[in-house]
Amino acid sequence: MMIAALVDVGDKHRLRRLLERLDDVKIAAQLDNMDGPSTLRVLSMLPADRRALVVGAMRYEAAALVLAQLALEAAASLVDDLNTDDAVDILGRIDKDKLAQILARLDRDDAEELEALLGYDERSAGGIMSPDYFSVSPDATVAETLAAIQASDDVPAGAFHVYAIDPDDRLVGVCSLRDLVIGRPTQRIADLMDTQVVTAKLDQDQEEVADLVSRYDLVAIPVVDAQNRMVGIVEVDDVVDVIREEATEDILKMAGAGEALAEARSFVSSFRARWRWLGVAAAGGLVVATSLSGFQTSLAEKPALALFMPIVAGMGGNVGIQSSTIVVRGLAVGFVETSRVRRLILREVGLGVAMGLVYGVLIAVVASSLGFRADAAELGLVVAGGTLGSMTIASIVGTCTPLILDRFGVDPAIASGPFVTASVDGMGLLFYFWLASVLVGVGS
Amino acid sequence: MMIAALVDVGDKHRLRRLLERLDDVKIAAQLDNMDGPSTLRVLSMLPADRRALVVGAMRYEAAALVLAQLALEAAASLVDDLNTDDAVDILGRIDKDKLAQILARLDRDDAEELEALLGYDERSAGGIMSPDYFSVSPDATVAETLAAIQASDDVPAGAFHVYAIDPDDRLVGVCSLRDLVIGRPTQRIADLMDTQVVTAKLDQDQEEVADLVSRYDLVAIPVVDAQNRMVGIVEVDDVVDVIREEATEDILKMAGAGEALAEARSFVSSFRARWRWLGVAAAGGLVVATSLSGFQTSLAEKPALALFMPIVAGMGGNVGIQSSTIVVRGLAVGFVETSRVRRLILREVGLGVAMGLVYGVLIAVVASSLGFRADAAELGLVVAGGTLGSMTIASIVGTCTPLILDRFGVDPAIASGPFVTASVDGMGLLFYFWLASVLVGVGS
Repeated sequence: MMIAALVDVGDKHRLRRLLERLDDVKIAAQLDNMDGPSTLRVLSMLPADRRALVVGAMRYEAAALVLAQLALEAAASLVDDLNTDDAVDILGRIDKDKLAQILARLDRDDAEELEALLGYDERSAGGIMSPDYFSVSPDATVAETLAAIQASDDVPAGAFHVYAIDPDDRLVGVCSLRDLVIGRPTQRIADLMDTQVVTAKLDQDQEEVADLVSRYDLVAIPVVDAQNRMVGIVEVDDVVDVIREEATEDILKMAGAGEALAEARSFVSSFRARWRWLGVAAAGGLVVATSLSGFQTSLAEKPALALFMPIVAGMGGNVGIQSSTIVVRGLAVGFVETSRVRRLILREVGLGVAMGLVYGVLIAVVASSLGFRADAAELGLVVAGGTLGSMTIASIVGTCTPLILDRFGVDPAIASGPFVTASVDGMGLLFYFWLASVLVGVGS
Repeated sequence: MMIAALVDVGDKHRLRRLLERLDDVKIAAQLDNMDGPSTLRVLSMLPADRRALVVGAMRYEAAALVLAQLALEAAASLVDDLNTDDAVDILGRIDKDKLAQILARLDRDDAEELEALLGYDERSAGGIMSPDYFSVSPDATVAETLAAIQASDDVPAGAFHVYAIDPDDRLVGVCSLRDLVIGRPTQRIADLMDTQVVTAKLDQDQEEVADLVSRYDLVAIPVVDAQNRMVGIVEVDDVVDVIREEATEDILKMAGAGEALAEARSFVSSFRARWRWLGVAAAGGLVVATSLSGFQTSLAEKPALALFMPIVAGMGGNVGIQSSTIVVRGLAVGFVETSRVRRLILREVGLGVAMGLVYGVLIAVVASSLGFRADAAELGLVVAGGTLGSMTIASIVGTCTPLILDRFGVDPAIASGPFVTASVDGMGLLFYFWLASVLVGVGS
């Protein structure tokens, strides 16, 4: 937290020396967690050529917050210095008006290139690709290719492959630099290249692209359009960002807490991201209150029943969240027995029943011994049965809801949290009170 | 689901043709989601040389399940064919007895190399590194280095860098193959190499290693021992696995559902992974029941109070989970204002209060209009106040618990879910009943 502390005390001299000593990435990592005004102050102290490197190394979400706060001229000049790939990822996260104003201040050609890239869905291969790669004709020899690489002044620093494209720009093969180094100078690229190229389509979802890169252990995947013409590459460092981002999104969605951590940075966007799911929970809670209202006589007779509502609902809610979390995450990383769904459901429900039996009995024993104003044995029986019922229902709802949503193409992450909890609360408690009225004969 | 379907109907002929048509990675992806016996049947149909490639491309967790089910001889021969890197990652996930028996059946040298690598903490750089990399003396020229690469028959397929090490094996610099290709043949490596090498320590936590690779956009990071001697490299594809795995672990931990999806594959290991957190929830629920037991008179007088317990506790629980999820995930990906903790807490609590006011009033209005057996206005007031109180308490608990755990070096992911819910249930409901006794004068 060194930088933030020095900004706070306003010690410009020591701050400047610290900035000289740290590398770009280390500065960026600290800026990620600082507020807007402090970040701008630090950036203003960096030499112009370092500024873009530092911002490019920041998390895109944080960099976008910075860009949004900069004056237009400063923002445009920063964008101009960023590499295209990073610029697109950052610009895709700021609001449209500001974006248009920044683009208007750029060089015509640069603005057009950025606009074209920003035109792709930001969650598609096109949205995360870089347009910079090194291509060669399959008829070129190894010596010619090496000479071309040496002569070219814009081989990207992270280039590890050479892509063989035909005169129509169609991708026909790929060669690693290692293949080139090992190959004989007179060998043709066509004889050396791997023709079984794993590619991503321009409009393919970024999660699928990430999955391909991760499955095939690639460092870059070429992106092709509908005519199989090569248009760019997605590099593994962007894939790493996608994987992190998608995991964050799943986690936040499951908790009904929005989709991105950046939303949580301001009160207003945070409120906007969260109020909806709380509304679902509130509506669910009102339905629960209404459906239980018939049991008021039971409650007046045996108020001890109310004391165990939290535990009956809570045990169900917890086991339901366990099941739904396992299914949601399993579906997201492709590690769920989709070929054996019946088995998965049976196992989860079996676990719900088993845990329900164990904890139902345990809770009942403790509850009976606590001596509430009710017949201890009867109360114990109802609590045990209620816990078992609620946990059984919860494991069914928790397991099946995400599976059903997934089958219908809806993101299963939204099924967890508020929805599972509210429905389990309702059904579990209804069962509990019904059991009380049957077993103990209270109420209507 | 093609492979699983063909295994089920037992159509060996079509299955064999399908296996010939699919590439290793596609087969592996399908095997990941099949049960043990079917997977073994498919593997037995593959030629021996493909078997290891397919298993190496499977998720380590799934591959470990396969290895555990194979006969010892078959397991040993499979391990022998795997590349060292994958073998270690898979063997690290099977039980110690089986592991010892498999190692005993390997070639002495291979077994020793694997044992050495397995000796590192599986969550450290040593545990995920590969011992295969290409090194060179800093005094070598570009031409000599290229010749050495050409002459060597064990340059790893994924090699994109050459590491310069001194006579004591100490890492002094790194050169990309691109640098070599662009360099002049007579240039010395020492004049070409980057000496500011980002390295990982042998015992460094895999999450920190992943963070370095992701921050510095690397495709491989060299691993050094305490004397700065190079011992291996961690490649980006393993980092991608780490990032996915850690995200999964966080998600499962937050739900109290264990640490790995593989645990969820069997009833017994699933039970073992989950019962503990349900125990915490049960204990919490019993404490809640006991602490509320003083309010039985209030409940007997106004049973309608019980109907709103789920909504009061639920709204708190939901907002608490939202806050704790944002903090837990923010800490995990390094995107939380650690330099401005007070501000973070104030914002979250402010949100809790704001949402509590909105939903408290909303719920109270609906509740009063539903006409329960209680004075509508009084009930509305208590429900509104209870919701506001419960949501305020929840946002404080949900925000502060992970921050405090993190400060004390405990993984904040375990703070979420069962713990936050149970404590919010207790405090929120206590406040609700206290409010009822004060405002409406019911009970003791």
